[in-house]
Amino acid sequence: MSYSEFELIRRCFIDQGLGFDRSGVALGIGDDAAIVRPPDGTSVALSLDTLVEGVHFPKQAPARLVARRALAVNLSDMAAMGAEPLCFTLGLTLPQSDDVWVAEFAAGLLESAKAANCPLVGGDTTRGPLAITIQVHGFGEAQALLRRSSARVGDIICVTGTLGDAATALLLLGAESHLGTQFAFVSAPSESQRQSLLDRYYTPQPMTDFALRAREQINACIDLSDGLLGDLAHILDASGVGARVDLEALPFSDTLLAVLSAEQRERAALGGGDDYELCFTVPPESLGEVQAIGRSLSVAVTPIGEICAAAGLSLRRAGESIESVSSAYRHF
Amino acid sequence: MSYSEFELIRRCFIDQGLGFDRSGVALGIGDDAAIVRPPDGTSVALSLDTLVEGVHFPKQAPARLVARRALAVNLSDMAAMGAEPLCFTLGLTLPQSDDVWVAEFAAGLLESAKAANCPLVGGDTTRGPLAITIQVHGFGEAQALLRRSSARVGDIICVTGTLGDAATALLLLGAESHLGTQFAFVSAPSESQRQSLLDRYYTPQPMTDFALRAREQINACIDLSDGLLGDLAHILDASGVGARVDLEALPFSDTLLAVLSAEQRERAALGGGDDYELCFTVPPESLGEVQAIGRSLSVAVTPIGEICAAAGLSLRRAGESIESVSSAYRHF
Repeated sequence: MSYSEFELIRRCFIDQGLGFDRSGVALGIGDDAAIVRPPDGTSVALSLDTLVEGVHFPKQAPARLVARRALAVNLSDMAAMGAEPLCFTLGLTLPQSDDVWVAEFAAGLLESAKAANCPLVGGDTTRGPLAITIQVHGFGEAQALLRRSSARVGDIICVTGTLGDAATALLLLGAESHLGTQFAFVSAPSESQRQSLLDRYYTPQPMTDFALRAREQINACIDLSDGLLGDLAHILDASGVGARVDLEALPFSDTLLAVLSAEQRERAALGGGDDYELCFTVPPESLGEVQAIGRSLSVAVTPIGEICAAAGLSLRRAGESIESVSSAYRHF
Repeated sequence: MSYSEFELIRRCFIDQGLGFDRSGVALGIGDDAAIVRPPDGTSVALSLDTLVEGVHFPKQAPARLVARRALAVNLSDMAAMGAEPLCFTLGLTLPQSDDVWVAEFAAGLLESAKAANCPLVGGDTTRGPLAITIQVHGFGEAQALLRRSSARVGDIICVTGTLGDAATALLLLGAESHLGTQFAFVSAPSESQRQSLLDRYYTPQPMTDFALRAREQINACIDLSDGLLGDLAHILDASGVGARVDLEALPFSDTLLAVLSAEQRERAALGGGDDYELCFTVPPESLGEVQAIGRSLSVAVTPIGEICAAAGLSLRRAGESIESVSSAYRHF
C-alpha cells in the first residue's frame, strides 16, 4: 500500500467523524501520539484485543459488523473494570486498499464509538492479512475500578443477560466450534432466530452503563469472552476462592431454549464464548440493589451460584454435584 | 492455538520479567484491563504501531531483534512527543505456538523495556499470520509535550544522529526498496559495515533522554520513520509553514559515506525511512543549548535548514534550489 492509500484510509476515518471531540482528549489523530487527560484523581484502564479474519470473525464478514464487534469486545473489557470509556486506538491491517470495505468499517466503528462516547484518537494502518487491533482506554477512581481478585466467600455469583447465544451463532457462520461435533441444533432456527443469534455474535452490547452504576456493590468482575467456566475460573484463581454454580440457574434466551437441547445449552454457556456479558460477585445483601439497577437499564441480573472457601468449581444440578461436567466442558 | 498455549505464552512474558514494577502502573498483566496512574498534573501520550512479517521486517528475522525493533519504533513516538515512557501493551499474532521463538521475542522485549523503564502491562495473543502491535504510553505535562504543529518561521530545523542507514540496511535484507532499482551500493560493505547498518535497522535507539532534556527548547518535533521529506512535510503541513533544507548539511554515518554515492545517500536520507531519529525545530537562540544537551548524551544534533513563511519545501545544494529533487525522492 502506498503512502497515499494510507492517507485515504486515515481520511476516511476522519471524514466519517470518528475523531469527534470528547472531554479528556487533548490531541487526537494526526501527531506522533494522542494526548489524553482523564479527570483529576482518576486512573486509566487500558485493554487491547486483536481480531484476525478467519479466527475471530468469518472471512467475508460484513465490514460494518466486524467493526462493531471489534470495538464492542474492547468496550466490554472496560465494563468489566467498571471504567468509563474515554477513547480508542486502531491498528488496521488490510490485504489491499478497498474503499468500500474501509468506508463500511468506519461507519460501523462510528456507530459503536458514538454510542460509547469513545472517539478514535490514533493508530496505524498497515498492509497484511486482515486483522484489527483495538486498544480502548477508560477511566475511574482507582478504588472504584473492578478487579478479578476481589471475590469474597459468601458472595453471590451473577451474570448479566443470557448465555450461549454467540457460541451458537458460530454454528450458523460455519465456524469450527471447539464445543465439538455433538454441538448442534435440536431444531432448525427460524429466520428471526438466526438473526437474533447473529446479532448476539456481531454486536455484543457492552455492559458499560450497568457496570458504572453497579460497581460500588460489585466485588469482583470479569466479562464472558471464553465461556463461563474459564472466565469464572479467572475470578476464583485471582481471588483464591472456590465456587458452586447451579446449572439450572443459567439464563438462556428464548431462541436458545427453542433451538438447543438442555445439554447443548449448558455446553454453550459453560464452554462457549463471545457472550460479552458480565460475570460478577456481590455480597448477598447487595444483590437486590444490583438487580434493581439492572431492571432500570433492562439488564437481566441472574444469580447462578456462590463463592466458597473450598478451592475449585463445583457444578450442581438438582442439588447434586456433577463433577464430570467441569472437565468435560472446559476446552483447555 | 488452545487456551493452554496462550497461557504458556503469557507465562513466558511474565516469567521473563516483562511485567516489572514501575511507579504509575497500579495493575499490570492479568485482569480485564491494566490500570495506570501517571503523576498528578500530567497527560498521557499514547501511540500504536503494527509490524507485519514480510512488510515491516523480513520473514525469518531473529525474534529478539524483531521485538527490540517493535518496541523501539513505539518508544520513538514517545520521544517525538517529549513524553516519558510509562508502559506498553502487546498484541501478538502468531501462526503457531513456538516456544523458542516466543522466548527469544520476550527476551528482546525485556532488553528494550528495561532500558526504557517501560513494563508490559497487558495485551492479547492470537493465532494468525505473524504480526506485532505495540501501544506505548508515556506522560508529561500537557504544555511540555511536543507537537508537529508548533514550528515557527525562523526556527532552525535539526536532526539527531545520522540519516539513511536503516533504509540502506534493507539492501542487505533483500527487501524491496521503494527507493528504486538505482538504489544500490557503490562499494560492497565490509562485515562490520553490514553489522552497523543492520543494527541501525533492527535496534533503533529511541531519543528519549534527549527529548526529555531538550523539549523545553524545541518547538515542533517528529520522528523519522518515513524519510526526511515526508516526515518534515508533516511538520510543515501541521504548522502552516514552509522550509528550506540544505542537502549538503545532511548528516551521514562513516558507513554510508563509504558504501553509497553522494546521490544515493541523499536518496536514502530523504526518501528512505526507519531511521527513528528526531527531526525538530528550535528558535535560533536555543540551538546552542540543544546541541550542548546532545553532546552531553552523545547525540549529534545537526542543523539542516530553516522554517520559512513561504509554503513548500525548498531543497538546496551549494546555495541553489533543486526543485526536481523534491518530487523525485518522494515515494508517494
